[in-house]
Amino acid sequence: MERPRHQGMAKNTYMRWRLPLVCLLWEVAMIVLFGVFVRFSPEADAHWEAEKQEMNLTSDIENDFYFRYPSFQDVHVMIFVGFGFLMTFLKRYGFGAVGFNFLLAAFGIQWALLMQGWFHSFKNGKILIGVENLINADFCVGSVCIAFGAILGKTSPIQLLVMTLFQVTLFSVNEYILLNLLHVKDAGGSMTIHTFGAYFGLTVTRILYRPNLEQSKDKQGSVYHSDLFAMIGTLYLWMYWPSFNSAISDHGDAQHRSAINTYCSLAACVLTTMAFSSMLQKKGKLDMVHIQNATLAGGVAVGTSAEMMLTPYGSLIVGSISGIVSTVGYVYFTPFLESRLHIQDTCGIHNLHAMPGLIGGIVGAITAAAATEDVYGKEGFIKAFDFTGVYQTRTPSIQGGFQAAGIVVSLLMAFAGGAIVGGILKLPIWGDAAAENCFEDGVYWEVPEDEESDAYHMHNPDKPASP
Amino acid sequence: MERPRHQGMAKNTYMRWRLPLVCLLWEVAMIVLFGVFVRFSPEADAHWEAEKQEMNLTSDIENDFYFRYPSFQDVHVMIFVGFGFLMTFLKRYGFGAVGFNFLLAAFGIQWALLMQGWFHSFKNGKILIGVENLINADFCVGSVCIAFGAILGKTSPIQLLVMTLFQVTLFSVNEYILLNLLHVKDAGGSMTIHTFGAYFGLTVTRILYRPNLEQSKDKQGSVYHSDLFAMIGTLYLWMYWPSFNSAISDHGDAQHRSAINTYCSLAACVLTTMAFSSMLQKKGKLDMVHIQNATLAGGVAVGTSAEMMLTPYGSLIVGSISGIVSTVGYVYFTPFLESRLHIQDTCGIHNLHAMPGLIGGIVGAITAAAATEDVYGKEGFIKAFDFTGVYQTRTPSIQGGFQAAGIVVSLLMAFAGGAIVGGILKLPIWGDAAAENCFEDGVYWEVPEDEESDAYHMHNPDKPASP
Amino acid sequence: MERPRHQGMAKNTYMRWRLPLVCLLWEVAMIVLFGVFVRFSPEADAHWEAEKQEMNLTSDIENDFYFRYPSFQDVHVMIFVGFGFLMTFLKRYGFGAVGFNFLLAAFGIQWALLMQGWFHSFKNGKILIGVENLINADFCVGSVCIAFGAILGKTSPIQLLVMTLFQVTLFSVNEYILLNLLHVKDAGGSMTIHTFGAYFGLTVTRILYRPNLEQSKDKQGSVYHSDLFAMIGTLYLWMYWPSFNSAISDHGDAQHRSAINTYCSLAACVLTTMAFSSMLQKKGKLDMVHIQNATLAGGVAVGTSAEMMLTPYGSLIVGSISGIVSTVGYVYFTPFLESRLHIQDTCGIHNLHAMPGLIGGIVGAITAAAATEDVYGKEGFIKAFDFTGVYQTRTPSIQGGFQAAGIVVSLLMAFAGGAIVGGILKLPIWGDAAAENCFEDGVYWEVPEDEESDAYHMHNPDKPASP
Repeated sequence: MERPRHQGMAKNTYMRWRLPLVCLLWEVAMIVLFGVFVRFSPEADAHWEAEKQEMNLTSDIENDFYFRYPSFQDVHVMIFVGFGFLMTFLKRYGFGAVGFNFLLAAFGIQWALLMQGWFHSFKNGKILIGVENLINADFCVGSVCIAFGAILGKTSPIQLLVMTLFQVTLFSVNEYILLNLLHVKDAGGSMTIHTFGAYFGLTVTRILYRPNLEQSKDKQGSVYHSDLFAMIGTLYLWMYWPSFNSAISDHGDAQHRSAINTYCSLAACVLTTMAFSSMLQKKGKLDMVHIQNATLAGGVAVGTSAEMMLTPYGSLIVGSISGIVSTVGYVYFTPFLESRLHIQDTCGIHNLHAMPGLIGGIVGAITAAAATEDVYGKEGFIKAFDFTGVYQTRTPSIQGGFQAAGIVVSLLMAFAGGAIVGGILKLPIWGDAAAENCFEDGVYWEVPEDEESDAYHMHNPDKPASP
Repeated sequence: MERPRHQGMAKNTYMRWRLPLVCLLWEVAMIVLFGVFVRFSPEADAHWEAEKQEMNLTSDIENDFYFRYPSFQDVHVMIFVGFGFLMTFLKRYGFGAVGFNFLLAAFGIQWALLMQGWFHSFKNGKILIGVENLINADFCVGSVCIAFGAILGKTSPIQLLVMTLFQVTLFSVNEYILLNLLHVKDAGGSMTIHTFGAYFGLTVTRILYRPNLEQSKDKQGSVYHSDLFAMIGTLYLWMYWPSFNSAISDHGDAQHRSAINTYCSLAACVLTTMAFSSMLQKKGKLDMVHIQNATLAGGVAVGTSAEMMLTPYGSLIVGSISGIVSTVGYVYFTPFLESRLHIQDTCGIHNLHAMPGLIGGIVGAITAAAATEDVYGKEGFIKAFDFTGVYQTRTPSIQGGFQAAGIVVSLLMAFAGGAIVGGILKLPIWGDAAAENCFEDGVYWEVPEDEESDAYHMHNPDKPASP
Repeated sequence: MERPRHQGMAKNTYMRWRLPLVCLLWEVAMIVLFGVFVRFSPEADAHWEAEKQEMNLTSDIENDFYFRYPSFQDVHVMIFVGFGFLMTFLKRYGFGAVGFNFLLAAFGIQWALLMQGWFHSFKNGKILIGVENLINADFCVGSVCIAFGAILGKTSPIQLLVMTLFQVTLFSVNEYILLNLLHVKDAGGSMTIHTFGAYFGLTVTRILYRPNLEQSKDKQGSVYHSDLFAMIGTLYLWMYWPSFNSAISDHGDAQHRSAINTYCSLAACVLTTMAFSSMLQKKGKLDMVHIQNATLAGGVAVGTSAEMMLTPYGSLIVGSISGIVSTVGYVYFTPFLESRLHIQDTCGIHNLHAMPGLIGGIVGAITAAAATEDVYGKEGFIKAFDFTGVYQTRTPSIQGGFQAAGIVVSLLMAFAGGAIVGGILKLPIWGDAAAENCFEDGVYWEVPEDEESDAYHMHNPDKPASP
């Protein structure tokens, strides 16, 4: 088992000093920065008892914790189990999928708490964190998990950590531009998370193009059980997506509406995905790759508009379209991107996040532009779009224009950032594997004795092991 | 691998045009109907801001979203991961179990939102949906997932969609008769979901009886890992059942009590299941089929009474009995049903849902009949049974009678509906597989290269593949 | 397949009468005791409608159910899926891991409701249970799941039930001493759950020392897919640990703060675990055992202090250290404990629960001793440590001393209790397997036809099965 793996491994994938060094240095840096900057928000601080009286709150239930914590936990599951297991479909890369996703997300959320904190929760020299910061950190890392999908199986853990460091930084800058400077709405992150994350990842994988990747082609597929493991990821993403899109929406009707729209969009998306998966295949059989991925496009595509008055039928329309686009993408675009544009997209994030993310941004811009006081009510209209303060005079159509600008900014940040970060990751010091060792856990993981041959020995003790 | 599958496949299982057609037509119909009928409930509508003032609510936390959303997500997990993975125990039908469950549930919830909406949330020509509607749609589809368990592995996806269409319709009618006409309590659905769903499914599978099913007998069992996948389903159903039974109970004590009763019943059920699983087997070994299924009977059996003052010890008794009944059912009734009554019940839903559902209905009737103002308190008594308006004069014993009538109605609806729908599904146009191809994913799914033989090649590249 | 399993099985592992007897007797006892003692707490009782008015509550949302139920469900998942699947890493003990964990936890929570109820919720001769009791029962059983980790694969289900009976009892006594007599804070259970549970389990496994355990050495490892199943357990424990540590904290800021501290500690722990896992291995490859276990040490180590003003950077420090200690433990201490002290610790609970539990107790004592009115605010200070009534005059440093005493008491209870219970379990009447049959599901479970050989037959029907 060892021989074919090492044979021809020209590259140095030895992690023993490099990986620990990066992890430990990083953690020390986090401790120092958290020590200097991070404190509890008033609602998580022991002073809350006094604070409550000042704010005239009669009950602890008014603490933001109770509005957001259940959604936070759902989002948390999506990032760690959802993305982690979604990527276990490869037959020999399950450890890397779940384990590296775990590593980069745990690494990234700490940095995201700082970066997003400086931009959004900075008061008197301190970052004050509460449950909403935890959700936002998970969101930010979600965009890294998406990019990871494009380069899955082809990078070393150090490359992933370096990418996480830069991507979280760029994400936070882009998010700041969109939410604060453009005053754009994007609670479920069609633009900030999906469009940015996916095009960033696609640019990185383009730059890291491996011409000889077909050498590991036999490992790029799935096996029966790895497809079932991946379905765990799919279903948790699918089920909890209503929580994702509503997690940081305004309390009350906005959270409620956001969950309903997302639920509807996702339901519709499953049907069109199944339809096109069967239709686009000669034998008419369903393809697990589509079911695992394209069924989720409906959640991405209402990420911006779910908290708006998209309405349930609007959600069905958006979900239906995104399921079709995504499935068609898997069948036609992914091979095209690889052969013509040299974009090797392991998980097909172009179909699951990039295109549906763009749809989501556009639908959000249209829904915002179409908003009227009639539909939202006078107070609801102002609250939904935060048309207060300097934005008091913004009209829906202007808001729609800014939403559209948000898409463009996200794309530019993704391409530019991805190009730079891809360039950094191309340096020959990060320990990535040779082409023939891609998609193979044995490079970075202690892999247990083989299941099959082992079972063979166990159950046929009196027979020789070799055929 | 292809040969044995196609050999003798007399039936036409080609889905390429039929499945997409059904899915797409359906989704278009949904979009049109949602467009005409479905709008947000006041608590999910942007007008809520104004509404709140009218209703004199001081806080957004009073939005029903915060009372029910965490339970909704748990129910959502039960429907998609719980039922989906519970059925992955078959060695070669994991894709079908998870994937078709996904398809039919996503299809069904849209139709359920409409059907249940017309009956229960119809105002001024519009269906107004909020989080409670989402839960009820999931519940409704739960009854379809149950019926799916009986015909698992023997039907085409189109048959499943046709069945879902009709079953959701009948479910909604039955539910309307029980809840509105008979004024019956059934928050956890012992009658509406389990009794109806299970006897419906059993009737359907009876009508679809396949005399030659033993031709695929080698695929009806489990393998080691498929049993572990199924345990994921089991545990999520078991853990979240308290949420299921309490999800639509009245705010406050009723939700609280419902969760406690269900928790107790399920705990007791595990012990009696283990006891009888060991006792009924000559070698005294535990059988995974029982652990995967009968441990859940306790949740079914308190579905009606959990929100009543069943009390914790009452729950233990009900849970204990249902675990025994269910396990005994797997050992003795299932073979009997198959050999004598020609009811081929793949997952044994008769043991997990039908009998415990009946127990649940009966326990509910008794608990209702035994209710006193002393036990419930004056206000609690009226609130628990909604003895207001025209029902002001109903006594507990009369309520008990109506509860019992609810069981009978559910059974009749299940038998009649199942017979008709079974007849429709028997038409030779739906693309079901031949007997020897049942329980085999390869019929409707692209199945990846085989795990074992593949691993074999990979790790012994220099050895021939054939022994 | 049968032969090697039974060959040499000198011990009588026949469960047919013993296991059912224990389960059924136990369940009858539970029903009787629940009937005599257990009733609903006011918030779960139908009298709540009247109660609300007396307590001047304006809304049902003030019911404790809404403060704690989402956390309860997360804890529930940790106990049943988290611990259950974490232990599926063994190649041939997945049924036992998940199934026996299910059995002992369902058995234990009923007894815990009674034991903890007598100590903490006893009023006028009745135990009044609400959602907080359900959480505490899950917590108590958590300590048994931990101890199970040490003896995994080496004990019969009856031994597990006997151990559960005694351990739940001792847990409740120890918890009473700590919380009520010493007035110690330990919301996440570093001392009561982890330190006690782990040292109890280690003492038991020491007493049950099996000198010939290397006879089943070939079954003590993992296979590829069993490691992925175990990661499901790991991730659910990791993701939901913030709910675990905050589940029974005071409403409001304490729950909020507890979740944040735990989130931070766990994130840091992942990085140091990865660093040391790579560093301590010659080839620098990551070891799944470490990733599955040591990444969780951060949750254990803030179990006592998470609800205190540990601060986010304090949490990062504690998490970082515990990840290192735990990983080092797996590499150096576990082999040492086995070879020198004859402590055979299947899952390495010494590294995951015992040492981090001690760290957690110490950090809690220090954090309490360092508390000031300045940091907590006047009201917050009193509320955080319950310095009311007879404890009005307690100072932080005295509290710190009592916290430290809590560690010592937990250790003593664990050693003494473990020794006694270990002695009882050593009696030759409980049906444990011989050394060569340890870590083998076939002893107590009906195991399905083998996956590999079966697949072999199915896909190569025309080839002989023997090589």
